[in-house]
Amino acid sequence: MTTPLYTLSLSCKDRPGLVADVAGWVRDHQGNITGAHQFNDAETGLFFMRVQFETPLPLAALLADMRPFADQRLMQWRLVDARLPKRVLIMVSKFDHCLVDLLYRQRLGELNMQVAAIVSNHPADSLAHVDLGGIAFHHLPVSRETRDAQETALRAIIADTGAELVILARYMQILSNELSHDLAGRCINIHHSFLPGFKGARPYHQAHQRGVKMIGATAHYVTPDLDEGPIIAQDVEPCSHADSADDLVRKGRNIEQRVLAAAVRDHLEDRVILNGSKTVVFRA
Amino acid sequence: MTTPLYTLSLSCKDRPGLVADVAGWVRDHQGNITGAHQFNDAETGLFFMRVQFETPLPLAALLADMRPFADQRLMQWRLVDARLPKRVLIMVSKFDHCLVDLLYRQRLGELNMQVAAIVSNHPADSLAHVDLGGIAFHHLPVSRETRDAQETALRAIIADTGAELVILARYMQILSNELSHDLAGRCINIHHSFLPGFKGARPYHQAHQRGVKMIGATAHYVTPDLDEGPIIAQDVEPCSHADSADDLVRKGRNIEQRVLAAAVRDHLEDRVILNGSKTVVFRA
Amino acid sequence: MTTPLYTLSLSCKDRPGLVADVAGWVRDHQGNITGAHQFNDAETGLFFMRVQFETPLPLAALLADMRPFADQRLMQWRLVDARLPKRVLIMVSKFDHCLVDLLYRQRLGELNMQVAAIVSNHPADSLAHVDLGGIAFHHLPVSRETRDAQETALRAIIADTGAELVILARYMQILSNELSHDLAGRCINIHHSFLPGFKGARPYHQAHQRGVKMIGATAHYVTPDLDEGPIIAQDVEPCSHADSADDLVRKGRNIEQRVLAAAVRDHLEDRVILNGSKTVVFRA
Amino acid sequence: MTTPLYTLSLSCKDRPGLVADVAGWVRDHQGNITGAHQFNDAETGLFFMRVQFETPLPLAALLADMRPFADQRLMQWRLVDARLPKRVLIMVSKFDHCLVDLLYRQRLGELNMQVAAIVSNHPADSLAHVDLGGIAFHHLPVSRETRDAQETALRAIIADTGAELVILARYMQILSNELSHDLAGRCINIHHSFLPGFKGARPYHQAHQRGVKMIGATAHYVTPDLDEGPIIAQDVEPCSHADSADDLVRKGRNIEQRVLAAAVRDHLEDRVILNGSKTVVFRA
Repeated sequence: MTTPLYTLSLSCKDRPGLVADVAGWVRDHQGNITGAHQFNDAETGLFFMRVQFETPLPLAALLADMRPFADQRLMQWRLVDARLPKRVLIMVSKFDHCLVDLLYRQRLGELNMQVAAIVSNHPADSLAHVDLGGIAFHHLPVSRETRDAQETALRAIIADTGAELVILARYMQILSNELSHDLAGRCINIHHSFLPGFKGARPYHQAHQRGVKMIGATAHYVTPDLDEGPIIAQDVEPCSHADSADDLVRKGRNIEQRVLAAAVRDHLEDRVILNGSKTVVFRA
Repeated sequence: MTTPLYTLSLSCKDRPGLVADVAGWVRDHQGNITGAHQFNDAETGLFFMRVQFETPLPLAALLADMRPFADQRLMQWRLVDARLPKRVLIMVSKFDHCLVDLLYRQRLGELNMQVAAIVSNHPADSLAHVDLGGIAFHHLPVSRETRDAQETALRAIIADTGAELVILARYMQILSNELSHDLAGRCINIHHSFLPGFKGARPYHQAHQRGVKMIGATAHYVTPDLDEGPIIAQDVEPCSHADSADDLVRKGRNIEQRVLAAAVRDHLEDRVILNGSKTVVFRA
Repeated sequence: MTTPLYTLSLSCKDRPGLVADVAGWVRDHQGNITGAHQFNDAETGLFFMRVQFETPLPLAALLADMRPFADQRLMQWRLVDARLPKRVLIMVSKFDHCLVDLLYRQRLGELNMQVAAIVSNHPADSLAHVDLGGIAFHHLPVSRETRDAQETALRAIIADTGAELVILARYMQILSNELSHDLAGRCINIHHSFLPGFKGARPYHQAHQRGVKMIGATAHYVTPDLDEGPIIAQDVEPCSHADSADDLVRKGRNIEQRVLAAAVRDHLEDRVILNGSKTVVFRA
Repeated sequence: MTTPLYTLSLSCKDRPGLVADVAGWVRDHQGNITGAHQFNDAETGLFFMRVQFETPLPLAALLADMRPFADQRLMQWRLVDARLPKRVLIMVSKFDHCLVDLLYRQRLGELNMQVAAIVSNHPADSLAHVDLGGIAFHHLPVSRETRDAQETALRAIIADTGAELVILARYMQILSNELSHDLAGRCINIHHSFLPGFKGARPYHQAHQRGVKMIGATAHYVTPDLDEGPIIAQDVEPCSHADSADDLVRKGRNIEQRVLAAAVRDHLEDRVILNGSKTVVFRA
């Protein structure tokens, strides 16, 4: 039997001794630290930390003991069993390349998640070629008039599945301010441009029009402020005058896939901590 | 004695037979084509071509013969002796990293140019560590009130040196609309962001504020529309939450150097052709 | 009805007038050149060219006319209808990530091919999650003793399907010298290292052992000389001390997918011409 | 007055509680940890850590206290004042691009070092264009017959200057086994290939011959085993059939510059810890 592995991520006001405090707490709970990252934000005076440790103690006991420790230091924190997959809901429209990629990586063990449901504003037959492997599919069409009702249905699915993360995998609809707000920090979108360039619709066409020499994609947490949410991951690829807007769309698919997968992986492994309108991402 | 090498670059309305016409013209002038690129812009119906060829004939004869050939086809064109260095004027403010890099590459033979003069709005002692190697240095300070007079002096230097290209190597002043217009297609600026993101002042601080995960630089032709000129080259590097704005400035220097050097090299080798507000760049 | 589009690729001894000759031939056949690339190899004195052109004439007529034209100039050449998909056979072992990626790109229209058959040395159930969409699957197990018989079966499948290209998509068996020879220039392998580093077996483990800071993948034509065939495409990603050999395997999958897809796309679009033990690759 | 900043780097056999021990030691010395990295090597069972901390205590007191702490845990360790520049000796042959780059970065404050001397096997006039700014230059020509004497002179310069790091900035001579051994872990070489590909002489010509599609450079610690030392940093750039060997040399210069600068910076900031024939590099 392997020893349980836990991930503790936290942020609080910086002050001397925090690393020693946390490391001491882990040692006092029979823990062996197998990975640790920290960041002191000189601008805000905030301290961020992620610690991974093994201990034979159960999660419930650790949570009970962490609470007073963290309260005393006014920490925002999260302590999870790192082996447990997170429950995830994936939303998609017509383009399925990000969905296909996420499901494939999940199958290979790259993403420690359990896809609880797929929601689309298009019918199931648009995913005819995707091996859903028994994942529940919900068709929730939406128009300007029906968005409230659609989001009520969506919230019900999130609640029923206990989804801890919502992934907008090229879901081409805008969530309401209320829903964006309620999903703060647990809803990741992939925008098909290198933000803050080319916000809004048809970014590849905008990029083609502007004549840029590289295109990119951006994964970010969703906020009510469209395309302004905290950025988790970005990447680019070169392009040239010879690329039509359609060529950019094709090249962009690869960028979107790997940027979204990277951001989702970071989130699933509790490597991302919010820092106001920015993120701290502790990569290996 | 080596055979002269010429570069012909042209654009015109697309129609069948253009490649054959141009290749035939070269053959009829005892030429051997050593490199050729073309681009048919489906959107505008324009045709772009760059041909490099060797021939024992002198430039004057070729120019005389090309004129009617090109006129008949309503071509915009340029035919130059590829071996001759172009005369260049470099403008700089306090940061000298792009200047240093350009001069070093020129010395190594990477850039086929002759630096006719350096102009700065700061005094020469700010370049105390740079080996100017006898290049004329002009101190042209500028304020809002004196810009007209300063540009008059600048125009005189351009005229006197016969500068074919002006490089704004982190020159932190804005050219007037008139001068920008008059230097259209022969004045390259390096902007220290991945345009169209973070136009204007202090782009690294803007980028830090936004929390992007990559920063970049953009070399473009100067136009009256600030930071909107035709893009020649762009590149990026990854960054993270741990990078302060100053770290971004440091990382950015490398990007600026290589992006500007690449754009200048492309221009010096007549690889860049304007296509409205965009560029066609024929790389090897 | 759209005008037919053809791709002519050729190589021959370099001499003046070749571009004019070819462009003239196209013009004389009512053709409009929509793309052209050339390369003069100064070391070998060879000339390489790829021309794409539209003409209403049928392929048969063009082939009949090209033959004497090319023979006279001792050209090696190939002239194809660019719209027609090439027939392809994909070989795979246990790892299916390259196969999955190729099939998905084919479905999206990124790869102009018709997958005529899939051959594996493992049974079909190892591909249980792959949507083969009706593609014939052949299980051809192989051991040292049975390789001759297996290759006879394989040759029969190639012949029956008329496969123009064989893709070794992480096929973990070595083809015989004879078969490698017979498939020269039409069999692409993906090697999971940045050749010439880490030839042979378990390259990611070799890379981990050596402590490299980047890993890569290489797509090349298969030759009897193992891992020495002409390279078509390569790419890399950074890694670190924190990456286990298994992490490298995971990161490597993405590199393998995109490098193989790029090489296959180049081949399918007749952008690759052999130049001895090297390739000329005419990218857009 | 700013608080002193210290860097502690260490390695030892892994066991539970090490992070708490080290963090506790820092806290007990009035320290505030501003950065920490760790790595548990599952293969060797070794633990690596780098901690940066501020404390008003002087270095001597910290060293005296760290010794018994570290001895008890059988640690290999190093504790330095992070603000103090390291004394460095740079060795160079004819190509000066890496030297020029290092000196420029030092001048801009990117590299916290004091260049104590420059040694070349070529006379000073080969560096006529380099602003040495008063740095001592030693011409130590060498041939097979005189290498012993030359290395004796070199060792004297290292001793006299107290050089803590020797940088082979395209120094094209091979150090003796004895000197390589004695400089273990404090002599960095830049090899102009992506190791382990193209060891030995003229790697760009080897790369051109092999027809690779990317070239690279590798910075590594020097060991008696030529081109086999622990790798610190690597990078690559794409190339194509159109690049001559000379083009690769040109493109390679940029890669060499930035790879060597990155490795030197990592070393100067005590981010590199040896792990057998590999390195642990703790980047920000």
